[in-house]
Amino acid sequence: MSNSMITDMETKIIYLENGSVTSAKGYEASGIHCGLKKKNKDLALILSTVPAVSAGVYTTNKAAAAPVVISKKITDGSSNVKAIICNSGNANACTGVDGHLDALEVQKKCAKILDVNQNEVLVSSTGVIGVRLNVPAIVNSLNILKDNLSKDGGLTAAEAIMTTDTVSKHFAVKVELSGGKITIGGIAKGSGMIMPNMATMLGFVTTDAKISKNLLQSALKEAVNDSYNKISVDGETSTNDMVLMMANGMSQVEIKESSEDYSIFTSALKDLSIKMAKSIVFDGEGATKFITINIKNAPTEKDANLIAKSIANSPLVKTAINGGDPNWGRVISAASSCGADIKPANCTLSFNDLAVLEPGYKIDYSEEEAAKIFAQKNFVITLDLNDGNANTTWWTCDYSEQYIKINAHYRT
Amino acid sequence: MSNSMITDMETKIIYLENGSVTSAKGYEASGIHCGLKKKNKDLALILSTVPAVSAGVYTTNKAAAAPVVISKKITDGSSNVKAIICNSGNANACTGVDGHLDALEVQKKCAKILDVNQNEVLVSSTGVIGVRLNVPAIVNSLNILKDNLSKDGGLTAAEAIMTTDTVSKHFAVKVELSGGKITIGGIAKGSGMIMPNMATMLGFVTTDAKISKNLLQSALKEAVNDSYNKISVDGETSTNDMVLMMANGMSQVEIKESSEDYSIFTSALKDLSIKMAKSIVFDGEGATKFITINIKNAPTEKDANLIAKSIANSPLVKTAINGGDPNWGRVISAASSCGADIKPANCTLSFNDLAVLEPGYKIDYSEEEAAKIFAQKNFVITLDLNDGNANTTWWTCDYSEQYIKINAHYRT
Repeated sequence: MSNSMITDMETKIIYLENGSVTSAKGYEASGIHCGLKKKNKDLALILSTVPAVSAGVYTTNKAAAAPVVISKKITDGSSNVKAIICNSGNANACTGVDGHLDALEVQKKCAKILDVNQNEVLVSSTGVIGVRLNVPAIVNSLNILKDNLSKDGGLTAAEAIMTTDTVSKHFAVKVELSGGKITIGGIAKGSGMIMPNMATMLGFVTTDAKISKNLLQSALKEAVNDSYNKISVDGETSTNDMVLMMANGMSQVEIKESSEDYSIFTSALKDLSIKMAKSIVFDGEGATKFITINIKNAPTEKDANLIAKSIANSPLVKTAINGGDPNWGRVISAASSCGADIKPANCTLSFNDLAVLEPGYKIDYSEEEAAKIFAQKNFVITLDLNDGNANTTWWTCDYSEQYIKINAHYRT
Repeated sequence: MSNSMITDMETKIIYLENGSVTSAKGYEASGIHCGLKKKNKDLALILSTVPAVSAGVYTTNKAAAAPVVISKKITDGSSNVKAIICNSGNANACTGVDGHLDALEVQKKCAKILDVNQNEVLVSSTGVIGVRLNVPAIVNSLNILKDNLSKDGGLTAAEAIMTTDTVSKHFAVKVELSGGKITIGGIAKGSGMIMPNMATMLGFVTTDAKISKNLLQSALKEAVNDSYNKISVDGETSTNDMVLMMANGMSQVEIKESSEDYSIFTSALKDLSIKMAKSIVFDGEGATKFITINIKNAPTEKDANLIAKSIANSPLVKTAINGGDPNWGRVISAASSCGADIKPANCTLSFNDLAVLEPGYKIDYSEEEAAKIFAQKNFVITLDLNDGNANTTWWTCDYSEQYIKINAHYRT
């Protein structure tokens, strides 16, 4: 995307106050407590009042939970959808055939209450692994869940999908396209780390744009690749990760293939997804710092991402960030040990605007300046390979003693 | 290797008390303080009184330190060697052309003192990254280092290569071959984690067996693959990792290609290497537990190792072990997310002899029993894939709050 397009786009995107999955036309949502958690909301419903095309991006974990398998089949198919139901408090993962039947039962009963076909309901779960889902608790609450559906329900739905999150995550953007304005809104959960027995990251996105299923899937995949797939907390992929999207066309603004509108739509969706992904990193329990990692001028995009991921996942880099130690040797070591094509002697490594390592291993910087940067809550690590033109940006947080404490003693 | 051979071999290997690199015939060593560290020994020398064939296995980190580049060139070549010189306190990594010249200078001056050719001296360094080596401190101490060489010097050499290690690591085995007895001895450093700015793991091994350079390299590579390459603390590969080996033939016992002697020699070397590798994991600063990870009946060895590595490196598994939480969901999730060929529904997962997960996600175990096992300082996690016949064993330790504390605040 050219710079002029970015500028154009910025003027065409407006973030809405209290935006969420109900910001776009034709969506209602609700969030209630059904009893899977001791207290707090644990069941969410998002409804499109008219049939919508759907798209989904899912975990690659081979122990994918039942709702992943069921929802993927739907978004891979050609039928329209009308709703997403999601519970927190139980991941319904590693629960075998029984767990699969449990998820289907929830889907079926939810469809019945909404008076839609079973395969029009996408299902999602997050919470403890290896424990059977309390299906009656959910089913007995479906009437209340439906009764609570409202045009303002996006925020309560965002609350109901939280597990260890300390804040709910919800955003929406209004985008100006050639045929008029459309809205994209989303809610997400994930608390900056994969929690003990907790399945991690969920994102649900809705739009009133009119777009084909294939185009929607392409746009979502691209957006996820540049957002959720570039955040790292502890580098693990959970059994339940998914991002689901519905597009119901209620704006009557159509997005055509290969059009400038499609580029703008995808950019807006990416921007929204990055906001949601960053909010997950920000909310890391135990996380005290937020770090942006820029890799510049790598030979290939693959190399750039390998290097960014290796730095973002490095326990030594993450503990140095926690301790405020501008330990550039760890960054170079992590970058050089991931199998990517990198010539350490060619690199320029900077913390914010301070170059700490320059080509030829030239080291000429003020340790005091570097320490000041590492003392900040939010800074940028930039590694310029000077060896190509592929760039990428990732986001990560630190490893704190609190991280260990939470993860070591969660169940005890 | 057949079971009968293992039994045969066990009777043919005897561990020596206070064994080290000077246990085999024709080796002397010394360890002194030359001033790279504030106190404690920081310079070691291992000498073979006659020319020896050498072998080496090195870090794959692309920011490999100067001594790695220099020593690799020698062990890759055909010339014999006579000595290994190693300093602690400074890794001489990320120091560019100047650092390379520094290492060559140390090598040259050491060769001169020992009256050998420069390329008969292997060099090694461990310590802080990115700081120029204090060459005069080393060079000015070479006379003392040489004067201290002795038949009992292996233990002081083991001390002199320590960085954050709390104990020195040294072992030796006597092995009965068809032509008589030979000895293999080694010293190692590494404190169970890659330390801040510290280059991690070094191993130096000597033997009086008579063996060709090629055979020695094959044996060492195999031994390293099944020992040092199967320990994980934080999954990072440092700039300075190396294992060097010398064989000087002083026992007059020859090991021929494809012989049973070669199998026994390799098994003994592997056994010694595993002992040294385990001692590194045991000595992890902040590590409170020692875990053996067995992967059984995987489709391929590659899959088995990928899975073992993923479990061994998983921050969530390592924190659960720290907290004594028998959190099998994390183990399955780590195993299923590494890209290996695994069918989670087919797996049997056991903690010691307690099966916590059986095929078909059958869960029928006592949480209390599982917690008792996880409360131990030393236990075994076994994942049986029931889907092939490849097996592997890895070793790891836990992540403790102390780990974060040490790594966050090391320089501050």
